[in-house]
Amino acid sequence: MSVYAAPLRDMRFVIDDVVGLGRVTALPGLDGTDSALVEQILAEAGKLAGGVLAPLNPVGDKQGSRLENGVVRTPDGFADAYRQFIEGGWNGAPFEEEWGGMGLPWLVATALQEMWQGANLAFGLCPLLTQAAIDALREVGTDEQKATYLPKLVTGEWTGTMNLTEPQAGTDLGAIRTRAEKVDDGSYRLRGQKIFITYGDHDFTDNIIHLVLARSPDGIAGTKGLSLYIVPKFLVNPDGSLGARNDAKPLSLEHKLGIHASPTCIMAYGENEGAVAYLVGEENRGIEYMFIMMNNARLAVGLQGLAVAERAYQQAADFARTRVQSRAVQGSTGSVSIIHHPDVRRMLLTMKAQIEAMRGLIYDVAAGIDIADRHPDAATRAGAQARVDLLIPVVKAWCTDTAIEICSTNVQVHGGMGFIEETGAAQHYRDARITPIYEGANGVQALDLIGRKVARDGGAAMQGFLADVDATLGALADADAPLAIIRDRLASGREALARATDWVVATMPTDPAAAASPSAVFLKLFGLVAGGWLMARSALAAREALASGANGDARYLETKLVTVRHYADHLLAQAPGLLAAIEAGGGTVMALDEDQF
Amino acid sequence: MSVYAAPLRDMRFVIDDVVGLGRVTALPGLDGTDSALVEQILAEAGKLAGGVLAPLNPVGDKQGSRLENGVVRTPDGFADAYRQFIEGGWNGAPFEEEWGGMGLPWLVATALQEMWQGANLAFGLCPLLTQAAIDALREVGTDEQKATYLPKLVTGEWTGTMNLTEPQAGTDLGAIRTRAEKVDDGSYRLRGQKIFITYGDHDFTDNIIHLVLARSPDGIAGTKGLSLYIVPKFLVNPDGSLGARNDAKPLSLEHKLGIHASPTCIMAYGENEGAVAYLVGEENRGIEYMFIMMNNARLAVGLQGLAVAERAYQQAADFARTRVQSRAVQGSTGSVSIIHHPDVRRMLLTMKAQIEAMRGLIYDVAAGIDIADRHPDAATRAGAQARVDLLIPVVKAWCTDTAIEICSTNVQVHGGMGFIEETGAAQHYRDARITPIYEGANGVQALDLIGRKVARDGGAAMQGFLADVDATLGALADADAPLAIIRDRLASGREALARATDWVVATMPTDPAAAASPSAVFLKLFGLVAGGWLMARSALAAREALASGANGDARYLETKLVTVRHYADHLLAQAPGLLAAIEAGGGTVMALDEDQF
Repeated sequence: MSVYAAPLRDMRFVIDDVVGLGRVTALPGLDGTDSALVEQILAEAGKLAGGVLAPLNPVGDKQGSRLENGVVRTPDGFADAYRQFIEGGWNGAPFEEEWGGMGLPWLVATALQEMWQGANLAFGLCPLLTQAAIDALREVGTDEQKATYLPKLVTGEWTGTMNLTEPQAGTDLGAIRTRAEKVDDGSYRLRGQKIFITYGDHDFTDNIIHLVLARSPDGIAGTKGLSLYIVPKFLVNPDGSLGARNDAKPLSLEHKLGIHASPTCIMAYGENEGAVAYLVGEENRGIEYMFIMMNNARLAVGLQGLAVAERAYQQAADFARTRVQSRAVQGSTGSVSIIHHPDVRRMLLTMKAQIEAMRGLIYDVAAGIDIADRHPDAATRAGAQARVDLLIPVVKAWCTDTAIEICSTNVQVHGGMGFIEETGAAQHYRDARITPIYEGANGVQALDLIGRKVARDGGAAMQGFLADVDATLGALADADAPLAIIRDRLASGREALARATDWVVATMPTDPAAAASPSAVFLKLFGLVAGGWLMARSALAAREALASGANGDARYLETKLVTVRHYADHLLAQAPGLLAAIEAGGGTVMALDEDQF
Repeated sequence: MSVYAAPLRDMRFVIDDVVGLGRVTALPGLDGTDSALVEQILAEAGKLAGGVLAPLNPVGDKQGSRLENGVVRTPDGFADAYRQFIEGGWNGAPFEEEWGGMGLPWLVATALQEMWQGANLAFGLCPLLTQAAIDALREVGTDEQKATYLPKLVTGEWTGTMNLTEPQAGTDLGAIRTRAEKVDDGSYRLRGQKIFITYGDHDFTDNIIHLVLARSPDGIAGTKGLSLYIVPKFLVNPDGSLGARNDAKPLSLEHKLGIHASPTCIMAYGENEGAVAYLVGEENRGIEYMFIMMNNARLAVGLQGLAVAERAYQQAADFARTRVQSRAVQGSTGSVSIIHHPDVRRMLLTMKAQIEAMRGLIYDVAAGIDIADRHPDAATRAGAQARVDLLIPVVKAWCTDTAIEICSTNVQVHGGMGFIEETGAAQHYRDARITPIYEGANGVQALDLIGRKVARDGGAAMQGFLADVDATLGALADADAPLAIIRDRLASGREALARATDWVVATMPTDPAAAASPSAVFLKLFGLVAGGWLMARSALAAREALASGANGDARYLETKLVTVRHYADHLLAQAPGLLAAIEAGGGTVMALDEDQF
């Protein structure tokens, strides 16, 4: 059984020293958040995550959610844990106080989110999707819709869902058949089936607010005929009380590889009189609004990757410290705990290095969201937004691919015990497997990256990123080992990424298939270099803190420097080797006919 | 649900053209096996694999084996399938006809084994372990033991098991506590518990022959006090009929991540009067005999990696050809099957390239076993054995690590459907996860490689390997593209491997912990280069066949050349990037104390 302790010290190092809390507390509306307050909030959240949510993780895996008499029952303890979660106010962490939120910076809310996901991925999905619904309604809901739904969603008294997929319409949302019909009172009636609806039903709350993508009345074929609708499970009376049960219900639950506690519903809308629905924003702009929901959700799924990886790492390190087996190759008087065996140490340190690179990158993007939301200067806001947009597919895909690797390594560290379900290592390996798939499969992220994020602006956003890497390289110009190692490898990785970018920008307009062929390799290269950049900044922060004589922390800071160097040699050093596959373009990938596979 | 068709054409290409069937049929005792016979045997086996064993794969996953009233019941259909398997004579494929075997070369038997494992990994484990028991008895059994057990084991009328692990003794066999006591009739009584005993009990056959590693009477502590014992489930009367039930029984089955149909038993020996046991070979040489069983079993587990990867690839390609979703980035009039999307093609082609490299390598090692067993020249035999010994840890670890990647990619190709258990992709992802663990965890393989296989002889066996790579590079000296690409990347990989070898040979004697720190990275580098060597030989074979005007096969051979080039750009090109981690040695890995993780 694995335990989970929120990695408070590492979170604070990234927030305070690597990303810089000051960058966000300098923004309008966030000046009340200082480092001491953050420390206190994180510690409090860590208690709930480690003490309440984490112990339910194996319970949820074993029991799963069940559909009984048309109603979803979540595993024992989950509804009570949710109650504690919303009573603590955690659901509204990054949202405005006027809606009942905490008004925290995204930078801090992201650390909180990491805890919920790390403690219990299947549980954490519920607030993750509520957050996506809130994002959409904040942005494009009417004042009445905001007043009706936001206070309940922000506090978590109600939850939200995102309904996109249909059997024939996975990645291809243009194929959606669920259809809306307008009725006299200005509302709509929806009819159709949606699949893969996370927390489409549950027993946490009295009401559920479904956000459903459906074809507008007279909507044309393809994505341009789609609108976004609110479909509450129970209609809401003018006084805010709950009214009639809507014609929207779960038909069945999927039998999944992992995240068993999360009910993945097939939802039926309008099997009888039609599901009462309310248009969000304007007709036929549903896809655009969906991306509002999706963008932060993609960041959150990348964060899930980090979170489950951290949990798997903690389990691996705990096991390695306690499992005694064999003498050490370097000599020992008797058998030693396996953390003394070099290959086990290598596995652990590689996990640790990957996790620290991911955490740095994700938290840096989160700070970018705060700046893009709040900075007084419009150009600064736009620049921050462009950076966030550039990095979100990288965060989503690179962090989730890496998470699978790390969860697999955790199984490996456990040896035979890792393959036995009771140990719990297998659950993380199973749970993590969904993260590269949902909220846009990683191949879609890679295509989004090379197309909309890199090629469309002729590489401008990427040049901005590379310039920031150069600034970090400049700060390391006079560094000795070990910092010189990360500097040199970051410089090589940066050159490879720059060359790959030039290739993508030149190739995409003339031969999109060639450009798309190695898009996932390009994304991996970007992830390795972006992670390397954050590790280099981490090394600079550690060097500065050491130089300032932070005595009590010297051992912690020295550990950071070793981890950075490990990232440089074991991970970042592989970046230039990816260029060959990128520059080969479609040479092999597009050369075969389908019968040749 | 995934189907499986034995990849007969690919198998024959490797056997006939890449490895060279002629190399083994030239050996004494194997001259009866020609290409036409091999084709016929493979086709016949393919029917059993695809028609009988493969459809049981999801059945086995869902039902699992159960322990009921002290007896293991395997899933519906398994016992009948086993009957068909042994009636076909397949169990004895590589063994002498005098024991009821087919007397086939290992090269051909390996292709057969690939089919059983690809069709049904959980089923295939049973004959895999019987084979290991046969290896030990053939090598060191007495004439009486051979006469009693070999005919039944070779035909598969009885099965064999390998009993090593105890709760405190996983990798560290020196910690074994199961103990033998000698009795007057020259036999022994065993007492102790063993865990992780694959097919420790089942309903396939009347009897099971357990080979058990236990501490000799008065055996000293550590591995040097261990002997190997035969413990039949039912004692065998002098006339060959079954006698009394032995004091050896399954206590419980493990609840595992995958291979559910394979009963993984906790075995109790001697809970009452003591389990009747017979010494194999000499006392206190148990570990040595165990390595006889283990060596071929390690090759077979590497082969399991290849086999489950092939099955996952077939499923991914089938799905990609039929699932229609979205327009193609290169333009299309409507939605297309996803095999037309470049990133999906990249995933498929990468899987295919990895699989072909693995198959080439494994079959080449199998041919090496034939040469080591049968070549008239002692020096040739010794040279072949050294090569087999060098490559077995690479086959075991690299092929199983790669298998996990491939099975994970198969899930990814399926998108959301891959995460739903009914699809079957998840089963391969779960099943494959055991392969890097059992028969010596991959970290143990890496340590074996750098220590016993590379450093111990000062790199001599490795120099022999590198010389063979050089010969292939020589044959490619005048090649144009696409063969020039594999040549150049193989040359770079070979240089990296040579440099890494020098480093290992120099470092191991003076600083074993430093040498061991990147041992898994070294093994991966070796795997990539060895795979590249086989792909280069595959390209040469395809070029030669094309030049000879094998018209009907031109399209097949052209596909091979594209696949080789893809391996060169997407996989082999990453080899030199691994040097940094190797040459960093223990610099980071050994730098931290255990509390710093």
